[in-house]
Amino acid sequence: MIRRSGEKLIERKKLFNGAGEAEVHKMLNGADEMYGKGRVFNHLHLAPGCEIGWHVHKGDGETYYILRGRGLYNDNGVTVEVGPGDVTFTDSGEGHALLNHGEEELEAIALILYK
Amino acid sequence: MIRRSGEKLIERKKLFNGAGEAEVHKMLNGADEMYGKGRVFNHLHLAPGCEIGWHVHKGDGETYYILRGRGLYNDNGVTVEVGPGDVTFTDSGEGHALLNHGEEELEAIALILYK
Repeated sequence: MIRRSGEKLIERKKLFNGAGEAEVHKMLNGADEMYGKGRVFNHLHLAPGCEIGWHVHKGDGETYYILRGRGLYNDNGVTVEVGPGDVTFTDSGEGHALLNHGEEELEAIALILYK
Repeated sequence: MIRRSGEKLIERKKLFNGAGEAEVHKMLNGADEMYGKGRVFNHLHLAPGCEIGWHVHKGDGETYYILRGRGLYNDNGVTVEVGPGDVTFTDSGEGHALLNHGEEELEAIALILYK
């Protein structure tokens, strides 16, 4: 099955009360397309100054894979800078946030799997 | 947890008897890091002329998300061209292959989840 680039569902929304909005491109549409093993496989776009607000995962874990740009990542309470090629992992019971503090768009792949 | 860009495991190998070799960057290292829900979350790099050879999935399904370049994708027997932003999905019992027939590197995210 092919889902062409222009056929992906795209949402623009504020994520967890973060600054600004994120643009969320969905490669897979939730748990039904993930054999019930997870619920998110998205390509995230954050303009400069925009962020994914702090949130804690319960019953699932999330991986971000940074494709482009620079971000300030809150890794369960510790803030570090992240950039292209970096991988972050938030286990169930942990929290995270991601702010684009750079001058270009920040792009990342997000994967949420159930624990 | 942060896995820095340079800390990811990277393998160069022939994939399913395809032409040439692929470079496989592992964001997560197999089922142990995926709560046992899947076994692959990789960033694939195919130089021009290189391919992921035809293979059939049994008991799991694979999604490719094309980031860059152009490819000829065998979608369970039907060959189509794919490019940036396209998503392919191969269900358990189906087969696929991906050839970089372009002039620049082809990059894709690969996700395999158990069915």
